[in-house]
Amino acid sequence: MTEQEISAAMAQAINEVREKNPMAPSITNTVTQDFVANAQLAVGGSAAMLYLADECESIAKIAPAFYINMGTAMPFYEETLPKAAQALQANQTPWVLDPVGIGLSSLRTDILKQFKEFKPTIIRGNASEIIALAKLWGLIEDTGGQVRGVDSTEKVSSAKAAAIELAKFTGGAVAVSGEEDFVTDGKEEILCAGGSVLFTKITGSGCALGGVMAIYLTVASPFIAALTATTMFNLAGIKAAATVEAPASFKLNFLDNLYKLTADEAANNFRVVGSFEKLFDGMFKEV
Amino acid sequence: MTEQEISAAMAQAINEVREKNPMAPSITNTVTQDFVANAQLAVGGSAAMLYLADECESIAKIAPAFYINMGTAMPFYEETLPKAAQALQANQTPWVLDPVGIGLSSLRTDILKQFKEFKPTIIRGNASEIIALAKLWGLIEDTGGQVRGVDSTEKVSSAKAAAIELAKFTGGAVAVSGEEDFVTDGKEEILCAGGSVLFTKITGSGCALGGVMAIYLTVASPFIAALTATTMFNLAGIKAAATVEAPASFKLNFLDNLYKLTADEAANNFRVVGSFEKLFDGMFKEV
Amino acid sequence: MTEQEISAAMAQAINEVREKNPMAPSITNTVTQDFVANAQLAVGGSAAMLYLADECESIAKIAPAFYINMGTAMPFYEETLPKAAQALQANQTPWVLDPVGIGLSSLRTDILKQFKEFKPTIIRGNASEIIALAKLWGLIEDTGGQVRGVDSTEKVSSAKAAAIELAKFTGGAVAVSGEEDFVTDGKEEILCAGGSVLFTKITGSGCALGGVMAIYLTVASPFIAALTATTMFNLAGIKAAATVEAPASFKLNFLDNLYKLTADEAANNFRVVGSFEKLFDGMFKEV
Repeated sequence: MTEQEISAAMAQAINEVREKNPMAPSITNTVTQDFVANAQLAVGGSAAMLYLADECESIAKIAPAFYINMGTAMPFYEETLPKAAQALQANQTPWVLDPVGIGLSSLRTDILKQFKEFKPTIIRGNASEIIALAKLWGLIEDTGGQVRGVDSTEKVSSAKAAAIELAKFTGGAVAVSGEEDFVTDGKEEILCAGGSVLFTKITGSGCALGGVMAIYLTVASPFIAALTATTMFNLAGIKAAATVEAPASFKLNFLDNLYKLTADEAANNFRVVGSFEKLFDGMFKEV
Repeated sequence: MTEQEISAAMAQAINEVREKNPMAPSITNTVTQDFVANAQLAVGGSAAMLYLADECESIAKIAPAFYINMGTAMPFYEETLPKAAQALQANQTPWVLDPVGIGLSSLRTDILKQFKEFKPTIIRGNASEIIALAKLWGLIEDTGGQVRGVDSTEKVSSAKAAAIELAKFTGGAVAVSGEEDFVTDGKEEILCAGGSVLFTKITGSGCALGGVMAIYLTVASPFIAALTATTMFNLAGIKAAATVEAPASFKLNFLDNLYKLTADEAANNFRVVGSFEKLFDGMFKEV
Repeated sequence: MTEQEISAAMAQAINEVREKNPMAPSITNTVTQDFVANAQLAVGGSAAMLYLADECESIAKIAPAFYINMGTAMPFYEETLPKAAQALQANQTPWVLDPVGIGLSSLRTDILKQFKEFKPTIIRGNASEIIALAKLWGLIEDTGGQVRGVDSTEKVSSAKAAAIELAKFTGGAVAVSGEEDFVTDGKEEILCAGGSVLFTKITGSGCALGGVMAIYLTVASPFIAALTATTMFNLAGIKAAATVEAPASFKLNFLDNLYKLTADEAANNFRVVGSFEKLFDGMFKEV
């Protein structure tokens, strides 16, 4: 895709979501559900969180997109998550996976192994999580290393190969979040800068990003959905950090800016790897 | 009731809650618990959320009012919800039901069918939910139609007959929330306008409204409790929307205004059906 | 400890947390998880919430500190909580217990009885909860009395003896929260004033306080951790209440101030019992 094509596709996704108010239901962690739902609503989507296996199964069949974040796994997730993922694939419902907490328990490992077969349309995680998932699925060599709970111990750049292999395997997109964000569909590779260090001082921005990717996935390709959500978050973060300097104010301003950002602003602030032009101070850089 | 009687009863409810700090425990969805609790506290009440069947059963016996919101049903709700509702009725504890997610699964349908016998004191929902519940309980004819997850596909006015039938059946009150809000006890019918479109850009205002109705239900009749909570929300929403224009700021300002509203302001801003007088710009209209 | 020693230890704890970004995982109630996590992040720590027994068990072994808040108990807590507490003690991982909801059900009573053996490093609760726990563990005479859900029916001062007995028994620290806050390790006794009445108009400040104590517990003694967290909360509350007058704004400003407070400000604003000097208007008083 040319830069112009990407830009146009992003603008269309942003506007279409605001017109159609599409719902992307979630199975997501209890800590950040409020933030995820409010971020989904702020960009123009609609939210619903579910736990029951049969509800997730039946909604997975009719929803235009779905979000699974493994955050705070509960005992009944053993039944709910595989059933939901199976229904998603069987009905070709696109879905976003956030493998947060990968490696914490045998239940998570078992479920994530099963997810290989159900091929999530977008995988979003921090560098450690993306590397761990690529290893779990046998797509890159397992050379050890570890994940610290929900925080990454790796730089985004170190997960580049893992992300590309995952995207090639699923045929969808992978987004690695961190100080910069790497988005790829296995062919296109974009490294987005921007955001704010204050994102690390509030809980749930990664979860909310995954939820918003699911919203854009209702109207766009996996790659454009992942890139659009990432760009919206980075820009809204830059704007928020420009006016406030503490975390609670930042979260409020970030959500407000997510709601107020225009399609033009967002669509003209991304960067294809290989070329280089600063469109927004500190916003993009080459891979 | 005359307009003056309603006004006086509303003012008394608002003041009495602020003096007594009554607690209305809840079984409510995990997405919006923080918002529900903070709204209950903002009007002067106290909050407690519970999941265990025996805890809900024992609290249902001694609480002055209770709130059941079916939002994010978990497997153990199969035991918790019927036991709680049974204890509420057996002890004549008034309670508010929000049948959100009606029709999503057989578990919800089974539980909501059982609730017919336990007669919730106030039922609050959007138009689609109120119509679906009236159909499920055989109070109006089932002519098809559907609910889209947590969003209404129907206008408030289309749920008027369903609301009145439900209220007549329970002997309590029913509130249909939407662009306008319809409140009835089967005899009185009030249509409240006001609020703000920004309520649709934040998650949980309907849940919070139900929780606040339960707080007022500790000191007032079902009809007055439903009307007072609805009016407080509409006024606080109008005030918030007058100073901010994005969702996160709106939510914050809304909660602050809920806390600051005087009994006089709220009690003088409702409208009995049949008469017409604008007390607050755009606030009320005839049914 | 002299006042200078306490002051130095507090300053060191505050700075060390900001440098090291330590994680204190939690099993905590679903209502206030967002607030707990954001408070932990605001002081410089990191958060993770868990439910599964095996995950809690394995994390309890490697975490530098842990937080158990019994708020919204779910059925599987029967397995999760004892396993977590056992692993915490077996691995000498320091942990904070908030016995909220004590007495609500047999499950809570059974679990809290088991916790006596596992000796929580810090116990934080309101006066009613601290008295109830000391009675349950047979450390003070049970003369009746009761807890009203999550709210205290007792003054902080009435829980002084119970707090001291609990601290002597565990060898750790106990903090009683209320209009003033009493912190003791069984020898030192400090009564901290400050805070704001607006803390009673938002949900979860007690839960968040327990979570922040767990963060400081990763780098400090139980007594210093409990005192540092209490002082940070009181000061941030005073600062927030000085600029806003409604609950949602207060919560936002409180979190922002928690992030902005310097180690000097906090470390110079506590008071050892027996001496008396006002370091901050209304902030401290003698026991």
